[in-house]
Amino acid sequence: MPGRPIITLTTDFGCEAPFVGVMKGVILKINPEAEIIDITHEIRPYDIQEAAYTIGMNFRYFPDDTLHVVVVDPGVGSHRRPVLILSDHHYFLGPDNGVFSYIYKMEHETLDVVHVTADHYFLSKESATFQGRDVFAPVAGWFSRGVSMEKFGDLITDYENIALPVPESTPEGHLQGEVILIDRFGNAITNITKSDMDMACREEKGRQCKVMFRGGEIPLRSSYAEGGKGNLCSVVNSSGFLEFFIYRGNAADENHIAVGEKVDLALRG
Amino acid sequence: MPGRPIITLTTDFGCEAPFVGVMKGVILKINPEAEIIDITHEIRPYDIQEAAYTIGMNFRYFPDDTLHVVVVDPGVGSHRRPVLILSDHHYFLGPDNGVFSYIYKMEHETLDVVHVTADHYFLSKESATFQGRDVFAPVAGWFSRGVSMEKFGDLITDYENIALPVPESTPEGHLQGEVILIDRFGNAITNITKSDMDMACREEKGRQCKVMFRGGEIPLRSSYAEGGKGNLCSVVNSSGFLEFFIYRGNAADENHIAVGEKVDLALRG
Amino acid sequence: MPGRPIITLTTDFGCEAPFVGVMKGVILKINPEAEIIDITHEIRPYDIQEAAYTIGMNFRYFPDDTLHVVVVDPGVGSHRRPVLILSDHHYFLGPDNGVFSYIYKMEHETLDVVHVTADHYFLSKESATFQGRDVFAPVAGWFSRGVSMEKFGDLITDYENIALPVPESTPEGHLQGEVILIDRFGNAITNITKSDMDMACREEKGRQCKVMFRGGEIPLRSSYAEGGKGNLCSVVNSSGFLEFFIYRGNAADENHIAVGEKVDLALRG
Repeated sequence: MPGRPIITLTTDFGCEAPFVGVMKGVILKINPEAEIIDITHEIRPYDIQEAAYTIGMNFRYFPDDTLHVVVVDPGVGSHRRPVLILSDHHYFLGPDNGVFSYIYKMEHETLDVVHVTADHYFLSKESATFQGRDVFAPVAGWFSRGVSMEKFGDLITDYENIALPVPESTPEGHLQGEVILIDRFGNAITNITKSDMDMACREEKGRQCKVMFRGGEIPLRSSYAEGGKGNLCSVVNSSGFLEFFIYRGNAADENHIAVGEKVDLALRG
Repeated sequence: MPGRPIITLTTDFGCEAPFVGVMKGVILKINPEAEIIDITHEIRPYDIQEAAYTIGMNFRYFPDDTLHVVVVDPGVGSHRRPVLILSDHHYFLGPDNGVFSYIYKMEHETLDVVHVTADHYFLSKESATFQGRDVFAPVAGWFSRGVSMEKFGDLITDYENIALPVPESTPEGHLQGEVILIDRFGNAITNITKSDMDMACREEKGRQCKVMFRGGEIPLRSSYAEGGKGNLCSVVNSSGFLEFFIYRGNAADENHIAVGEKVDLALRG
Repeated sequence: MPGRPIITLTTDFGCEAPFVGVMKGVILKINPEAEIIDITHEIRPYDIQEAAYTIGMNFRYFPDDTLHVVVVDPGVGSHRRPVLILSDHHYFLGPDNGVFSYIYKMEHETLDVVHVTADHYFLSKESATFQGRDVFAPVAGWFSRGVSMEKFGDLITDYENIALPVPESTPEGHLQGEVILIDRFGNAITNITKSDMDMACREEKGRQCKVMFRGGEIPLRSSYAEGGKGNLCSVVNSSGFLEFFIYRGNAADENHIAVGEKVDLALRG
């Protein structure tokens, strides 16, 4: 294999607590060759939807064969299942509570989902409060050492899918989406993708789209700098999603934009 | 050796400042093979007790032969000594100000403590304000390259031990402990361990324990999810310590729980 | 080469967002052998001066041949150029907006600055909002794999330099500097260096310097601990800069010290 096996971590543990460091210790104890990369540990506590989008939007930037561990797990200690997933040369490991819904939803050639039951790979059965350390880290360690997927359990097809809002056509012929995430800069990210826009706007030749929000048009820019200071603008962001921003400002705070607010893509008149 | 030498870092430097990155640079300049893992950099500034518990509770999850560097050092620039410690296949490096008290207190087969005086391993003698970079990082680098413990200085036995509160028996036959840490989720961690509980509660057959706090009984659950929303509950946490929590809430904030508050383990009547 | 190629990251992305993790994914996809170290991701958003000081003060603690990537880039998406720099055995990569001014300003034997134009090394041309991922990460990956500097573009000499305030002599014979940074501990760092002080104070034998601020003398200590609790003091910090601090306190908050305030070094009367 070219280089060391790569494992990414996406959690809501925060950077303050030693939880993340301990998970890395457990992984390295099993596989000292693992290369562990943090995607983020600041998912909003228990926010399965944010976790689903975060891993879905970002996993492809990592090398093939990367194992992506996601631990956002409000039901830790209850009976929800751990799952290990293969999808188009990337692997995923975490609770079966919907955090992988975006992965399931994306187009893929292969999708294998294993219910992880082989508890001889777990660290211990003692703790019902920290499965990141006791279940997911050791399974990640053994998997990265080459234990094959089927050794961890049986294939399942009834894995958990949460509803991720998708843009819909309105009677007026608009494509209507909604705000799904506010990032740390106050950018309000919607579920309308660049390909949604291409499809909606190219349908009728010679006509262009406009972004409608709260009854008004929001200018569509091609970079943040083009926004000019102080103006609420929109842009297709680096993940390919339509997003509201204020150049060097905080769009969500200044305009009280909340997750769930509607945004329309309308053909120019 | 199987894999690269592992060095962990536990500090109160915070994630914002470049201090941690610079320590890593110094280590890698001396030993490019070192694998450096952050345990946490968010120990409360100058909080030696929190540092002592944090490293004590977490070091065992790392591979044998790991070197754990702890830099919480209110007396930097004064005459407190640097120490390098071997205890049961783990190594520790930091200021001799009590941050290793929990290590000393634990049962161990071996305990060697060296006063680090070999200043030719230090980066320079210029700075009295950043020994993390100038003393601990380079010593960690050289040690991880294989320089043996005795090269750094002489064995000492008068190393600094801070008093770590331990549970005590009360006249009523309770085991009385106290809150020692509040974590980022508002969980209030006590110094009563699972083995304290096993010992206290199995003494008299057929009788069980109850957790008493502020005159009332606090239900003991086996996972967070079992707590149900909004209720103050207790659980043996993933480090084996009795802890108060509110499922998806903040126990310490909502109940104004502070470090030092008493908690009793009483036999069920 | 001794060990893996080292790449450092200094950005204003914050620790919350997945941006940093994604940059690491892109680098590792190109060069799985790269060792990536965070210097800081908490540069004040868009603060080019803080970025310039941070990388300038800290790069030397890393091994020779380290590549230092700095992404503080308010003009992302506009026409500012990416640059790749060689200066005294260290490499630097980032936007040509002044973040490397401190590097240019320091004494160096060599200084080569390349305007990075070879866009076949870029990830894609699709995103105008996240060049950290699309330009700087892949160039870092390819460079760390051994692609030589000249392959990325032509040498330039008109690179961007922002004015970094330097101490000046006053009519009274003082050396006057100013506060340039407030760190997370509330320490107020000035642009007066230890060598400025040595030069200014040794000029006339037998006379010593005093630090003057807001009309009064601020005691100069050799460590934080020497300050004693509650007193505003000064110290030459670990980067060799004169700095105001309060031992176990927050000098900037308690005294409302702001960036830009003047500080004088005066000969003792």
